[in-house]
Amino acid sequence: MATSSNRYRADLRDFRFVLFEQFKLGALLGSGHFEDWGPEEVSSVLSEAYRYAVEVAGPLGPVGDREGCRLVDGKVRTPSGFKAGYERLYAGGFKSLTLEPEWGGARAPKSLAILVNELTSGPNAALDMYGGLTLGAAELVEAFGTPDQKQRFCHKMFSGEWAGTMCLTEPQAGSDVGEAATVATKNPDGTYAIRGTKMFISGGDQDITENIIHMVLARVPGAPKGTRGLSLFVVPKLRLDGTSNDVKVPSIEHKMGLNGSSTCVVNFGDDGACVGELVGAAEGQGMRQMFQMMNFARIGVGVQGLACASTAYLNALAYARERKQGPRIENARDVDAPRVAILEHADIRRTLLEMKAKIEGIRAMVVKAGWHHDAARQEPDASRGEYHAGQIELLTPLIKAYASDQGFRIAELAIQIFGGAGYTQDHPVEQYCRDAKIFAIYEGTNHIQALDLVGRKLGQAKGANARAFFGDVLGFVAKHRQHPRLGPAVAELERAANAAAAGALQLSEWSTGQLARVSMVATDYLNSLSEVCVGWLLLDAAVLAAEALPAVAADHPDHAFYQGKVQAAEYFALWVLPVATTRLKTLQHAPTSPLDIPDHAFAGV
Amino acid sequence: MATSSNRYRADLRDFRFVLFEQFKLGALLGSGHFEDWGPEEVSSVLSEAYRYAVEVAGPLGPVGDREGCRLVDGKVRTPSGFKAGYERLYAGGFKSLTLEPEWGGARAPKSLAILVNELTSGPNAALDMYGGLTLGAAELVEAFGTPDQKQRFCHKMFSGEWAGTMCLTEPQAGSDVGEAATVATKNPDGTYAIRGTKMFISGGDQDITENIIHMVLARVPGAPKGTRGLSLFVVPKLRLDGTSNDVKVPSIEHKMGLNGSSTCVVNFGDDGACVGELVGAAEGQGMRQMFQMMNFARIGVGVQGLACASTAYLNALAYARERKQGPRIENARDVDAPRVAILEHADIRRTLLEMKAKIEGIRAMVVKAGWHHDAARQEPDASRGEYHAGQIELLTPLIKAYASDQGFRIAELAIQIFGGAGYTQDHPVEQYCRDAKIFAIYEGTNHIQALDLVGRKLGQAKGANARAFFGDVLGFVAKHRQHPRLGPAVAELERAANAAAAGALQLSEWSTGQLARVSMVATDYLNSLSEVCVGWLLLDAAVLAAEALPAVAADHPDHAFYQGKVQAAEYFALWVLPVATTRLKTLQHAPTSPLDIPDHAFAGV
Repeated sequence: MATSSNRYRADLRDFRFVLFEQFKLGALLGSGHFEDWGPEEVSSVLSEAYRYAVEVAGPLGPVGDREGCRLVDGKVRTPSGFKAGYERLYAGGFKSLTLEPEWGGARAPKSLAILVNELTSGPNAALDMYGGLTLGAAELVEAFGTPDQKQRFCHKMFSGEWAGTMCLTEPQAGSDVGEAATVATKNPDGTYAIRGTKMFISGGDQDITENIIHMVLARVPGAPKGTRGLSLFVVPKLRLDGTSNDVKVPSIEHKMGLNGSSTCVVNFGDDGACVGELVGAAEGQGMRQMFQMMNFARIGVGVQGLACASTAYLNALAYARERKQGPRIENARDVDAPRVAILEHADIRRTLLEMKAKIEGIRAMVVKAGWHHDAARQEPDASRGEYHAGQIELLTPLIKAYASDQGFRIAELAIQIFGGAGYTQDHPVEQYCRDAKIFAIYEGTNHIQALDLVGRKLGQAKGANARAFFGDVLGFVAKHRQHPRLGPAVAELERAANAAAAGALQLSEWSTGQLARVSMVATDYLNSLSEVCVGWLLLDAAVLAAEALPAVAADHPDHAFYQGKVQAAEYFALWVLPVATTRLKTLQHAPTSPLDIPDHAFAGV
Repeated sequence: MATSSNRYRADLRDFRFVLFEQFKLGALLGSGHFEDWGPEEVSSVLSEAYRYAVEVAGPLGPVGDREGCRLVDGKVRTPSGFKAGYERLYAGGFKSLTLEPEWGGARAPKSLAILVNELTSGPNAALDMYGGLTLGAAELVEAFGTPDQKQRFCHKMFSGEWAGTMCLTEPQAGSDVGEAATVATKNPDGTYAIRGTKMFISGGDQDITENIIHMVLARVPGAPKGTRGLSLFVVPKLRLDGTSNDVKVPSIEHKMGLNGSSTCVVNFGDDGACVGELVGAAEGQGMRQMFQMMNFARIGVGVQGLACASTAYLNALAYARERKQGPRIENARDVDAPRVAILEHADIRRTLLEMKAKIEGIRAMVVKAGWHHDAARQEPDASRGEYHAGQIELLTPLIKAYASDQGFRIAELAIQIFGGAGYTQDHPVEQYCRDAKIFAIYEGTNHIQALDLVGRKLGQAKGANARAFFGDVLGFVAKHRQHPRLGPAVAELERAANAAAAGALQLSEWSTGQLARVSMVATDYLNSLSEVCVGWLLLDAAVLAAEALPAVAADHPDHAFYQGKVQAAEYFALWVLPVATTRLKTLQHAPTSPLDIPDHAFAGV
């Protein structure tokens, strides 16, 4: 009964708005690091990525889901077409955009790369991950490897000829990475014998690339306990002479979604013949090295959530435009009244507007992180550089956790808009929902993000990053409090921002001696602060849209687009932010029932 | 890596608490309609249903999910073991508890039957639905059929020998049931020739029972448009002489979950040879008849949500007790600190307490609906009977929508507590989550429930039902406002209840002339009113628990159980209700952005 085609959708008009109108990327282009880039180059890359998304990755989305990965004779078979899809991903250059020319890159702005990532991930997160993890692994070698390691590994990894993985998790060491027990014993030739079991390794095996380069956290004998004792190793599946390196995949997971991405248990050195190389020259740097790459890996997961949410929304919107059901509510009792598209029903409109507002606000938030990176590159003033770096630090946990949670929730709303049809595989939204759940778990669960926010980021640089953030928000408020149209919405933002600032102070007080209370409210705080940020960026966009509107002809598509920006911001500020404010105030004197309840009182069994 | 067994869990202590301590079911037993029932009989039925759940239905849960239903040569094959499971369901008498002895029933209280339904549905909603729909279909015949129809159909349907279905939806007629186009043309012998296509028919075909009795809404030629022109027909798959009745299943749906339940397209009369019987004597009564059965069908869907949520919670709790990860947060920097069960982490405790509070509050809400039914039976005073019937009317949309939405959400939280393991099929929670999504859609989408609440139930009996509800809540508040422990929590309930009452007045004003605004806020209103009800019932339970506590020895399991009741109510009142209050206040002056935004402003594409 499919009435919508099973396809990926994206709103490139909004991409251009966020990049050029809201963040004024144009001002950073055409000189310095971005001298080869102008607005046309940016638009052209977006169009090409969109074509790849619709023509290549999109059609493989349901194939990957239905076929899934299989383990046959110890080797993973990926779904039909994934190898060809991966090759097209690399042929398009979408995974090397920001790299230096030395590595086949184009020195593209990070803010653009992030939106290209939305386009490559949205239609098929499973396929995209093989490339995303490869890029992350190669960037680790490039950042911390010896010159010789870079030459031997980076060319083939950045080009996608070899894939890469991140091997952190072990059965007993999930969120508690420091418990990792994989052992690396130095060989006389300076290499290391690796022995241990890693699990939940995405792309741990596949039949797409001729080799897989595993980045493995392991412990040298005698190293300290905890994360301080971990070192990072390059462990190829095949040694560079093509022989086996004793890396085995005994099993893969059967999952709720993301079935096209292989999730593997990987055994290193079962037969005592696994050889790895220390990344760089010093042992014990593994966590520091991983952490340095972690911000953009986490932002990447947020982008997965955004991408899923956005295509789910646009599919639901298309369905709402064509599916007719019932008359307008004013004619509910008139059996002869014309049946209307469900887009005409108020609840559908409210649901869609909430989805739209959250998606566009989250998109602005991820582009903001990329923009800070790009602006810092072009910024000669060191203190401004610190400001930009600090905002990326602060935004990272918000983006990872809020965008991934909303990715799932918005996909759920999309199912609801489709009704019974959305629960079937005739439409893509149920798969988006299943795929999205893992985004809240991997790359640090969302509560780990919340702890990162309240335990680390809020107080980072003696609180300067958080102060700068609230300063930016309240500066916007001061400037636009009297806005003729958006004034009341800006006032709601002010209330929410003040409650968030007060909450930060409260958390800081609790951080000496009452750490459990901090942890208890951290998730609520992260969600609320994310909504302050999203509300701010939506209102910032709405102010620009309201300014632009008078000059746009009423029949120009931009007229509706700008109206949409104003309505979305107003909805979010007046409907969603009051709840965030209440949550922020509540958590400052939240009862400690979760801490006080005896363990055996959770259930009568 | 499964560390928990893949099994159904239930907290029977809470079942007994709600039935006997909170709703004092004992007072209704032992006389009149329930003369054969006492507390021991109730406990014994619960224990037997729990044994069926754990031993029979539970193990078939993942089997049904992985195998799914298949359509082979036009016939549905259900998963392995489903036929035997269905027979055990009926052998246990769990689908005939409330019936009269004439039909093999035991005249059990509805409040008990609802909790038995939680036990039979929770481990395997797909399997349970074959029986649930059969019971609903048989009750329709019993309520509205001719004496002859009752004799021919009810015995075999109530006993489960024949199954039943509800055939309302058609491709163009989902929420808009009145658009149904299936035609019933009277034959000279008084039967009707049925012709049309129904879709999303649960159990539309299966290989479990020898016959399937379809309850079909259809339109007699010349009947009025809309729901007024619909009549209800009994249409067996096989005529009672055993020959085919021209009922075909051309396709079944492939779904996100509930895979063990066949979801069928059913064609009636493709070859002009499908014969149906009008239910009762008069045409045009179809919707009225359906509606009369709808309350408990909808409550049944709420119970599906509750059941899913509860077993997801108890599985997550069991996992949290055994899974060790990280030290206590106070020792975060001490690598030698002992690793603790994740139940010790504040965020896990808060998440579990939120799940527990919602589940126990929802359970009290569904039992309340059953209790009103039971109390009315034993009530000689007609005005009290109206009060009870009115509360069932009012509670029905809350139960259906809130419990189904929370079923999905709580299953999601359970996945999050399991972390990566929860995303795999090694644990049951991801299936609970996938199964639960449909509960928000079928039997009237949750927005249809919201419209039923704000458009029908709030104003029903000239508002008497709603006034009685708020009167009950505020009566409780007046009585317990000074409670030494729970006073502040009761004060939060008062604020929320007053906001909900004010919201009802606002909705009533909008209902003349501003219907779209009513629809726009209906879902938020339903959710908030549900939380008022849940918060009230949790606090009511907590008051009882606080009274009981001093007399219970500290090492008796009830001591922890009652403490849990107090903590859950406090958490919900002080952490969740303030948000509901804000939402209720917000929607009274919510912006009309969802109505104002132009259709083409939802996206720039």
